[in-house]
Amino acid sequence: MALWSGRFTEGADAFTQQFGASLPVDEKLYAQDIAGSVAHGQMLAAQGVISAEDASAIVEGLVAIKADIEGGTLVFDVQQSEDVHMAIESELTTRIGDAGARLHTGRSRNDQVVTDTRLYAKQRASDLMDANLALRAALLETAEKHFDMILPGYTHLQHAQPVLLSHHLLAYVWMLTRDFERLAAARAAADANPLGSAALAGTTYPLDRFATTTALGFARPIPNSLDAVSDRDFLLDLMYACSVSSLHLSRLAEELILWSTSEFGFITMADSYATGSSIMPQKKNPDFAELIRGKTGRVVGDLVALMMTLKSLPLAYNKDLQEDKEGAMDAADTLEDCYRCAAGMVATMTVHPEAMMAQAQKGYLAATDVADYLAKKGMPFRQAHEVVGHLVLLCDKRGCDLEDLALDDFKAESDLCEADIADCLNLQAIVEARTTYGGTAPVAVRQQLEEAQRAYAADQIRL
Amino acid sequence: MALWSGRFTEGADAFTQQFGASLPVDEKLYAQDIAGSVAHGQMLAAQGVISAEDASAIVEGLVAIKADIEGGTLVFDVQQSEDVHMAIESELTTRIGDAGARLHTGRSRNDQVVTDTRLYAKQRASDLMDANLALRAALLETAEKHFDMILPGYTHLQHAQPVLLSHHLLAYVWMLTRDFERLAAARAAADANPLGSAALAGTTYPLDRFATTTALGFARPIPNSLDAVSDRDFLLDLMYACSVSSLHLSRLAEELILWSTSEFGFITMADSYATGSSIMPQKKNPDFAELIRGKTGRVVGDLVALMMTLKSLPLAYNKDLQEDKEGAMDAADTLEDCYRCAAGMVATMTVHPEAMMAQAQKGYLAATDVADYLAKKGMPFRQAHEVVGHLVLLCDKRGCDLEDLALDDFKAESDLCEADIADCLNLQAIVEARTTYGGTAPVAVRQQLEEAQRAYAADQIRL
Amino acid sequence: MALWSGRFTEGADAFTQQFGASLPVDEKLYAQDIAGSVAHGQMLAAQGVISAEDASAIVEGLVAIKADIEGGTLVFDVQQSEDVHMAIESELTTRIGDAGARLHTGRSRNDQVVTDTRLYAKQRASDLMDANLALRAALLETAEKHFDMILPGYTHLQHAQPVLLSHHLLAYVWMLTRDFERLAAARAAADANPLGSAALAGTTYPLDRFATTTALGFARPIPNSLDAVSDRDFLLDLMYACSVSSLHLSRLAEELILWSTSEFGFITMADSYATGSSIMPQKKNPDFAELIRGKTGRVVGDLVALMMTLKSLPLAYNKDLQEDKEGAMDAADTLEDCYRCAAGMVATMTVHPEAMMAQAQKGYLAATDVADYLAKKGMPFRQAHEVVGHLVLLCDKRGCDLEDLALDDFKAESDLCEADIADCLNLQAIVEARTTYGGTAPVAVRQQLEEAQRAYAADQIRL
Amino acid sequence: MALWSGRFTEGADAFTQQFGASLPVDEKLYAQDIAGSVAHGQMLAAQGVISAEDASAIVEGLVAIKADIEGGTLVFDVQQSEDVHMAIESELTTRIGDAGARLHTGRSRNDQVVTDTRLYAKQRASDLMDANLALRAALLETAEKHFDMILPGYTHLQHAQPVLLSHHLLAYVWMLTRDFERLAAARAAADANPLGSAALAGTTYPLDRFATTTALGFARPIPNSLDAVSDRDFLLDLMYACSVSSLHLSRLAEELILWSTSEFGFITMADSYATGSSIMPQKKNPDFAELIRGKTGRVVGDLVALMMTLKSLPLAYNKDLQEDKEGAMDAADTLEDCYRCAAGMVATMTVHPEAMMAQAQKGYLAATDVADYLAKKGMPFRQAHEVVGHLVLLCDKRGCDLEDLALDDFKAESDLCEADIADCLNLQAIVEARTTYGGTAPVAVRQQLEEAQRAYAADQIRL
Repeated sequence: MALWSGRFTEGADAFTQQFGASLPVDEKLYAQDIAGSVAHGQMLAAQGVISAEDASAIVEGLVAIKADIEGGTLVFDVQQSEDVHMAIESELTTRIGDAGARLHTGRSRNDQVVTDTRLYAKQRASDLMDANLALRAALLETAEKHFDMILPGYTHLQHAQPVLLSHHLLAYVWMLTRDFERLAAARAAADANPLGSAALAGTTYPLDRFATTTALGFARPIPNSLDAVSDRDFLLDLMYACSVSSLHLSRLAEELILWSTSEFGFITMADSYATGSSIMPQKKNPDFAELIRGKTGRVVGDLVALMMTLKSLPLAYNKDLQEDKEGAMDAADTLEDCYRCAAGMVATMTVHPEAMMAQAQKGYLAATDVADYLAKKGMPFRQAHEVVGHLVLLCDKRGCDLEDLALDDFKAESDLCEADIADCLNLQAIVEARTTYGGTAPVAVRQQLEEAQRAYAADQIRL
Repeated sequence: MALWSGRFTEGADAFTQQFGASLPVDEKLYAQDIAGSVAHGQMLAAQGVISAEDASAIVEGLVAIKADIEGGTLVFDVQQSEDVHMAIESELTTRIGDAGARLHTGRSRNDQVVTDTRLYAKQRASDLMDANLALRAALLETAEKHFDMILPGYTHLQHAQPVLLSHHLLAYVWMLTRDFERLAAARAAADANPLGSAALAGTTYPLDRFATTTALGFARPIPNSLDAVSDRDFLLDLMYACSVSSLHLSRLAEELILWSTSEFGFITMADSYATGSSIMPQKKNPDFAELIRGKTGRVVGDLVALMMTLKSLPLAYNKDLQEDKEGAMDAADTLEDCYRCAAGMVATMTVHPEAMMAQAQKGYLAATDVADYLAKKGMPFRQAHEVVGHLVLLCDKRGCDLEDLALDDFKAESDLCEADIADCLNLQAIVEARTTYGGTAPVAVRQQLEEAQRAYAADQIRL
Repeated sequence: MALWSGRFTEGADAFTQQFGASLPVDEKLYAQDIAGSVAHGQMLAAQGVISAEDASAIVEGLVAIKADIEGGTLVFDVQQSEDVHMAIESELTTRIGDAGARLHTGRSRNDQVVTDTRLYAKQRASDLMDANLALRAALLETAEKHFDMILPGYTHLQHAQPVLLSHHLLAYVWMLTRDFERLAAARAAADANPLGSAALAGTTYPLDRFATTTALGFARPIPNSLDAVSDRDFLLDLMYACSVSSLHLSRLAEELILWSTSEFGFITMADSYATGSSIMPQKKNPDFAELIRGKTGRVVGDLVALMMTLKSLPLAYNKDLQEDKEGAMDAADTLEDCYRCAAGMVATMTVHPEAMMAQAQKGYLAATDVADYLAKKGMPFRQAHEVVGHLVLLCDKRGCDLEDLALDDFKAESDLCEADIADCLNLQAIVEARTTYGGTAPVAVRQQLEEAQRAYAADQIRL
Repeated sequence: MALWSGRFTEGADAFTQQFGASLPVDEKLYAQDIAGSVAHGQMLAAQGVISAEDASAIVEGLVAIKADIEGGTLVFDVQQSEDVHMAIESELTTRIGDAGARLHTGRSRNDQVVTDTRLYAKQRASDLMDANLALRAALLETAEKHFDMILPGYTHLQHAQPVLLSHHLLAYVWMLTRDFERLAAARAAADANPLGSAALAGTTYPLDRFATTTALGFARPIPNSLDAVSDRDFLLDLMYACSVSSLHLSRLAEELILWSTSEFGFITMADSYATGSSIMPQKKNPDFAELIRGKTGRVVGDLVALMMTLKSLPLAYNKDLQEDKEGAMDAADTLEDCYRCAAGMVATMTVHPEAMMAQAQKGYLAATDVADYLAKKGMPFRQAHEVVGHLVLLCDKRGCDLEDLALDDFKAESDLCEADIADCLNLQAIVEARTTYGGTAPVAVRQQLEEAQRAYAADQIRL
């Protein structure tokens, strides 16, 4: 017994069988594998490579196998088949004999596996686009519901200027609208047919690649067989789209966690989106927002993993590529769950407008507008800035807000101040003054909301 | 003196000044900053916020500043200005007085900096699209020049089936064609105008955001001011596009390095794309291909860096975002250099067809075709596979290739073999038989090459 | 029905239950959880917090539960328990009543979960150290077996100077020796006891943290309760150690793949570490080396994932930390399999010394030594370099190697050449001349091999 | 003019010269390069390879060059030298003639560059250990200064239990203490001498590698020449140590940013560690904490970059390795600045104990202790939990805290309540009750603080 094997109780063959097997991961592709085989088989018959009888037997056999898998009566065993493709093919051959063996004519596992993976990626991208819309719907509804609420707008997490809650929530809608675009691009990247590329060089059989392209619903056949079997860009695109959207969700989650604190107190999570403590009876923890934030790492990690795997790989197929699927599946599953969880969380949270307004009263949020008021009356902005500085000091001394000062207090600093300065002091008025496109005035936000709703409706059609 | 400061010789102010400054990085944005300020100033005048005289002075002042920067007579100092925006504004005010100070009306550094960055990102994406085309041109020309050469096609880095060199090179052209698409998507993502969003909430001045959008050549204004100042997706998109293309270049570089070895001997690098050794006189190292391969890491690292920076950031602007530019610039610069270097390398390398052909003769590359030959004559593929196995053993014994066997040798294994079996044995014939779309037959590769050239021409128009 | 929920068929509660559950991941920690509970329960009794009877019931109950889990008669259900800690506790309470409920006195899930995780991390680090030694053993044995074989040493993948195969393999032994060190450091990082920190602040019960530290085999208790429940550095350390070692394996795998090619032909993989092709009968693919190389990405991805999750988390425990275990488990499992696979692969591969020697004859590997020969006789090195250049050209013309030249050929270039120049030409002699510490001369490599064996023996004791 | 070069105005040679050059990065290594050359030259003389006169000329020449570089009179030009090693050697040869040319005897750039890099890495690790101690000192002093202050302890960012501010700050001290360990490990990893390994295989000159090891202050010579020139683990170790410590700083920065908000109001940053707004006069932004948090990404990005570069590299030296230095330098520079900035920030911030205490009064932080009180008197914990639930409801109704209830209110819920329940209600009393090792009671924290100070003192000696 060699030194190196001293610690291994399993035989080398059993170990390498398990180490090399991809069945536990790729068995999720059974439906795609069967769809690809049906299309290939029917095309072979149409081209006269196999008989019509063989094709019928193949299709019937595969349909039955699919039903048995879904019915739970057929379960694959990693001891017998290293991957889902072999598992299904050998089951088929057991059932229908030689015809099953002819299915693989002019096909290699190299083009077969990537055909399945592309079909799967297209489906998952569509699923994610759907879940993306659900979250946008939840945000749009919440923005509509709390349209006029004011909260402090932050830069550097410091109070800056008052904004509408709807405006704030719409910022996330736009992020998600961009994410939809990236998901659609990932779906389009996957939407090309490698089938017929065989091992790497095409085949001597008269395959009709355009026929399988149509049958499988692909947009086009891939024009280079070497590229077809070694390209995994479409999975990178999918994981990248997932990563960016996860980053957006981490920002949303961070804010919801902040807003749920005792210190902010802007929202209360619904009971189904929070947990208590078995020890501390007073606790209500925003666990789900934290999980969404925490899962960002794994999605980005999945992307980095495949990038590293692809680095320096020579053409064409290399076994390294077997590592392509698990991370992509995980990224898509994770993001779909997070979309769903975030949608429920946003839709069910209780908003506390008085707490938002109370915070918006702090930090002299009107300061910019008072300076603007003076500047518009002709005072150079630098001087106006100084005047406002004095007024802020006065408030500090009195322990009040700018809004609490009398007109005479303002006049004492500058003759330019008149009764209409009140329009610069009231949070409502400050918000309403920002009417430029994209600004926080209700009239502008209403326009924005409608624009976001139109984008939502347009994206629904693209599913 | 406190313990913690014991080791610091510099004063806290000097240190934080340097730590917080972004000038060394963002001074590259001077042209974009000036363009943005010209557009903003002219719009302010058109809207009646500042006078036409002020606007003229601003524009003339900025034009002069730009000329002085480019002429080398104006150099910024990090001791005086923390960023390029302050540096230019304070220079302008020094030169033209109060009018300069009015330029910042209704604008914040928050929308200003991201306007500049978007203009820069658009430009760099265009530059990269241009360099991408240059590399595709080099590959297309090389594919055209060596159209008919045969080399062994590899899977698992083992000889699999013979392919045309042009076919092999076109695989990279298609990768780069996809990369062009990603770069174009990154450019489109950057192509939206944040100017007029002010600090985070819009402004009380009657800004015309559509006017600056047109003046700066943006496709549209950004519809949400909070999103406008905090969104950096467009930089992620750019770095992602760079990352994937770098991965493709790492694959190309790996192959060129392999092909340059004594063992493969398929190519010789031009002297200008190789280096010698001061010690070992016989050495010719493919340094530049290695550098291209090695630089993949830094591009992906740049992407990961910004992703991590963005994670969990609440709205709207946070200073963390100052870290957005350096990595994006580095990724774009690195990829542009790598494109350029790869183009020169491919265009100037010497190809050794006889070495490729000699290797293609090894490893019984005709084995699949002999099996297909028998299968097409009706023998079940499994049996055909076994027959070929015997023939390979015979060759092994004689130390020859399948092509060297006599017809009788074939007939001894199967009566189905006839004189036309020669068409399965000759590498040229094997290649020519793979005529399906995307296959390696010259007729198919010619069609593919033309398709790639059309894509090239179409992309040229999109620059 | 709200818009956002339109697509969700599952109820929110069922979904969030599944989304928030960690049982599918943390059920692997059952043994650690039970060990921690036994230690905690016995300490509670020793401190008089619970009765001796309760402690006995707890210990007996837990021992029985462990036996049932391992016997397969107790299976946890994610519908009933969100994590392994709750699952075991509720099972215990069902079995032994109130005493079970008293077990959680002075303990929180926050300190419980990280105690379990640390015990698990220690165990996995030890397992990896063991597997690391197995691979080193395989490399050491192979180096011993092929001690004297010569192959071309490469820089830039170009032939540089001849080296011993044993010397080359030992380079990997040293990498792995460093990896052992990192694994040991990760184990030491995990080796500290958080139990007794409760939720975040310690507890009012008179717990004896030193007693549980001893009982659980930890090196020390963690001195800060806030840090204790929020620190996950030890998992980063473990994944980092795995990442670096995976990178080393990717380098080894890359070389074994290269050496298996038709072009190099240095080794043949054992059948159990290679696969064939169902289509191409001549193929023998180094699939397992490729998988090892390809899996590097996932290990590094796991590390990046947790790093991103930890970024910006405030103290103390946050639910984001639930994402800590899956990646760490995956990294450890992956590396352990790769170690094992690499050990088997190296131990069973067939080495072809004649192919190595044939390649070593190419590329004028003696050139440096001829120049050194002349330099040592007093000729300035630059001139010697030029002389060798002439000789190389002569060989090129004759199609021979430096070794094939006659003494007169050398003398024609320089009078300094004498019969002893033969010692510079023979590969064996060249290798033997590099006797400095760490050099490739057999005498030096023998010393190095013994040093590596001593390090191996010393590390065995540290398991 | 070829298509591919159409867009390139620079000649290929000028471009590749710039693309391949590392001088702009490695010129920082000039001192290390000169130290290495001095040691090598003196050793060559001691071994009789060069004359004592030559060695003297070399050493004097190098000392003069170093003085000229530091005096600013010698500036290198990337047009003339591709790296710092060539730049210094050619300058030396210009100055002292042939002796300079003899310096490179038995040395290759492959071992030279990694010797320099190791010396540099050791120095930077030491610098970082020093800066790490400075930040620990600032935190220790601040903990000492505000030893008794109470703030709410958080889990899930929700109020959990009161803790001492000193306890909270010490959590970061312990993180940094672990970081010091990782930095020390990185320094030890760099502390091995590759010099004398030549290009890859050792050399035929009788070099004394132990002599240069001693002269350069390395702990040991590297025992394998192939490993010596291709190992970059020590840079990974350094960047990993930087990455983890950056993650810790991101957590600290996040908390300081939160504490600086209007909502928390726990601290005010010193003016030198905050910035204002040119527009909003009321703003005081914690820019520096945000920068520290934001820079975490770049440090981790640097680590990922080199990991990707190293993946799949065959032995021995490859040009890819030229990419090793820039990221490592950046990571070290960034962390050193962040340590320094954080130290200043912590040392100068103003703490508001009343705001901390006011928040600690919210959220019924005494709830756990009341339940513990009842449980210790014999009530089963589940029942006690319910009793406390009723009391919390009562407080909610009255709008008061648990501390405001009368003893009769408690007795109405349970007869077990007596006057001593007051000890469970007062925040001070709650804190003081957590006396177990690592707990938040002043007596325990005092012990912890002393332990942390001892660790600090012990680490100071290791610099």
